[in-house]
Amino acid sequence: MSPQKTNELAGQKIIISGGGIGGASGALALALRGADVTLYERHYEFREVGAGLQIGPHGVKMLEKWGLKEKVVAGGFLPERMQFRDGVTSEPILTMNFDEEFIERYGAEYLVIHRSDLLNLLVEAAKEAGANLVNGTMVTGADDHGDGVTVHLADFDTEKPYDDVECDMLIGFDGTHSIFRKLIVEDDPVPSAYVAYRGTSKIAEEPDPEVANLKDVRGHIGPRCHFIQYPLRGGELLNQVAVFQSPRYLDALTNGTEVPEDWGNNEEFKNAFGHTHDNVKGRLKNMWLDTWWQMADREPIKNWVASDRIIVMGDAAHPPLQYLASGAVMAMEDSECLALFASEAAAKGELNWPEVLREVSAERAPRCERIQTTGRFWGELWHVDGISRLIRNELFREAERTGWFIYADWLWDYDASRREYLNDPSKGQLPEEIREWEYNLHKIARQRDEGKSANELTI
Amino acid sequence: MSPQKTNELAGQKIIISGGGIGGASGALALALRGADVTLYERHYEFREVGAGLQIGPHGVKMLEKWGLKEKVVAGGFLPERMQFRDGVTSEPILTMNFDEEFIERYGAEYLVIHRSDLLNLLVEAAKEAGANLVNGTMVTGADDHGDGVTVHLADFDTEKPYDDVECDMLIGFDGTHSIFRKLIVEDDPVPSAYVAYRGTSKIAEEPDPEVANLKDVRGHIGPRCHFIQYPLRGGELLNQVAVFQSPRYLDALTNGTEVPEDWGNNEEFKNAFGHTHDNVKGRLKNMWLDTWWQMADREPIKNWVASDRIIVMGDAAHPPLQYLASGAVMAMEDSECLALFASEAAAKGELNWPEVLREVSAERAPRCERIQTTGRFWGELWHVDGISRLIRNELFREAERTGWFIYADWLWDYDASRREYLNDPSKGQLPEEIREWEYNLHKIARQRDEGKSANELTI
Repeated sequence: MSPQKTNELAGQKIIISGGGIGGASGALALALRGADVTLYERHYEFREVGAGLQIGPHGVKMLEKWGLKEKVVAGGFLPERMQFRDGVTSEPILTMNFDEEFIERYGAEYLVIHRSDLLNLLVEAAKEAGANLVNGTMVTGADDHGDGVTVHLADFDTEKPYDDVECDMLIGFDGTHSIFRKLIVEDDPVPSAYVAYRGTSKIAEEPDPEVANLKDVRGHIGPRCHFIQYPLRGGELLNQVAVFQSPRYLDALTNGTEVPEDWGNNEEFKNAFGHTHDNVKGRLKNMWLDTWWQMADREPIKNWVASDRIIVMGDAAHPPLQYLASGAVMAMEDSECLALFASEAAAKGELNWPEVLREVSAERAPRCERIQTTGRFWGELWHVDGISRLIRNELFREAERTGWFIYADWLWDYDASRREYLNDPSKGQLPEEIREWEYNLHKIARQRDEGKSANELTI
Repeated sequence: MSPQKTNELAGQKIIISGGGIGGASGALALALRGADVTLYERHYEFREVGAGLQIGPHGVKMLEKWGLKEKVVAGGFLPERMQFRDGVTSEPILTMNFDEEFIERYGAEYLVIHRSDLLNLLVEAAKEAGANLVNGTMVTGADDHGDGVTVHLADFDTEKPYDDVECDMLIGFDGTHSIFRKLIVEDDPVPSAYVAYRGTSKIAEEPDPEVANLKDVRGHIGPRCHFIQYPLRGGELLNQVAVFQSPRYLDALTNGTEVPEDWGNNEEFKNAFGHTHDNVKGRLKNMWLDTWWQMADREPIKNWVASDRIIVMGDAAHPPLQYLASGAVMAMEDSECLALFASEAAAKGELNWPEVLREVSAERAPRCERIQTTGRFWGELWHVDGISRLIRNELFREAERTGWFIYADWLWDYDASRREYLNDPSKGQLPEEIREWEYNLHKIARQRDEGKSANELTI
């Protein structure tokens, strides 16, 4: 089913830097409102690293708005439920059914899909909607001259500059190492000490019937590690992710010594899951060993507007840890929010880009701050040990008994048209009950700043 | 209302060593079945140390059976609810209402009473029921000669032996340093590293209206400490208990150095509550400073029968930590269980003391093991810090939402006549979900045995 294309933004020239899931979704959302969108992607093809991607109902709603629902469902997989299991015992401790009640509550299904499949669908749809997608070209800078933006381009291969181009508004969808974020803040990624190994394999070749018949997103969560499994591509592929805390990274951090570049390497991987259940450690042979992902995020920022007509979105604005499976979804929400606010203003004959960008930033930055911060908390909750793990397990069981919805509503029941964060920016903070919580890595850094030695640190 | 006195045990001569709450309740329960009971208490008066005592419905049911309900209610206090609050923020995190639903479910109210008031009532009732209570006399040993027990006595003051006395059965209700427990096991108390300060004050002189009007058992629980408050004597007195982990005790334990005898002294007390809310640290001026209680329990034992006709009960059998407020109640349950099993056998003409004692031990030891072990776990849950505390708080909130009954039924809904532990001794274990939990102090000792240094310990 094709989406209805409208024309509120007809005549508006928009340039997007970056052709990942964020940039492609931005091109699509804006082109569907009739804007004249050009997207520059430095690589010669559109590609995503990684494998499976979880898209909660907050993201599926975006895809549905953009007319992609049927295609993503056909190319992806609709898991029946998400099940958390204790990583040591494999006991199911929280099962979240993606049933009719779920769909009713959140307005869409829960989807998993291969990252590159989703990107391809977004790119194709953006082109069909009329966006101009250009490969092999880097956006190297931009000058906001009040009436518009002059954008500097260069060839990716030779770095030779192209002629400048003009636009009414520029979006830096240029990822976690964004050059436009630097106009707002000079910051560094915050490594989490956790590293991910991934792997996909053919489900048809799977000897274990319980895995061969897996219809869930299954997450084993245990001390200092977790392990996620779900089917992809209509159940053809099995996607697995094994994540653990790198002892070498943590040691370097606590001792104040240099962090080895290859933290999380194969040697550490092989020793990281000895304390887990066979349902975890027996599965690790399927993981790719030649690449691993050192997981990091950045501190939330409260303003995404680099200058009146330049905004950063997606990972350029809010790179998260992966625990809430909302990195790609936030970028899609960013895109739809911008397209919505701009087209609403235009429909009233009041399109003023600086105002629209400030409004988008004011709505989106608090929401993404909450997702980033809660993601850090959620990750720590997965990885606790000792009595904390037993309490966490019981809390999960209780959440299943009472209804876990109360913990997920803020995340999954979102609609930018409600402008809820714009109206109440305090919603970007952690809930009162956990506001005093301090991110483990901050806590270590703070204690080191206070002059404590490695032995004295509370981790 | 006086209880109905029966005579199933008429002619049975029973000696009890120890006149605390346990011994007095044993004398009462057995005298009410017509037994010829003599209790020896070494002190010249019956007395209890400490102040307030919480008696859950499992204990109130015993007092009701013994005809003491009206008197304990008149002399004690029926709190409206038990409320747990976070020790740092003072936020209520779990409120357990002692309402009609509670009374219906557990068959009795929740009572608090001054320890010495309860002891006096039990002593008076035991005498009225015909028991012979003797002060100033120590039981120094006993010989079980098959047909009965020869009990050795001495004067408490001069230690001069008295003539031996004979009985059909002897109960060692002689406390945590019991001489009869030694016939079963040679063990030591297990200090918990926690120390309690107590204090009572007149509620009429209380300036803070919130405290002056307190009708609850209120417990602030926080990192490494807790603070309990409730009214006593019909609301005339305020009872307060401040408990904290002694850093000096813990240091000595982790470093393997000698434990100072005065661990938990005033100096430590004054530094122990700095991180707590004003509702805690602002109250400490009311605590007595001349005495403190170093809290310890002992390992559970599976058999309480010292010889065919000698059994240990109360703290001699199962000294617990205080967290489940069941130390005195267990002793009362022990007494009623023994009186019940013996009188049921006698009513059938089958009274065989060795068999009765084995049956009592088989019913009671697993139950008390579970109370002792769960008490240790419950205490650790109160004292957690960091993210664990936030998870614990949320678990408590969830328990309030779902109904906390599921966690309390095993403790408060008990009736020895059901013989549930006798029929299924596995009920004495911790529930499956936390069975792998290891008591913190055991964990430290284990790691030290494994050769770890203080720096390497996981606490």
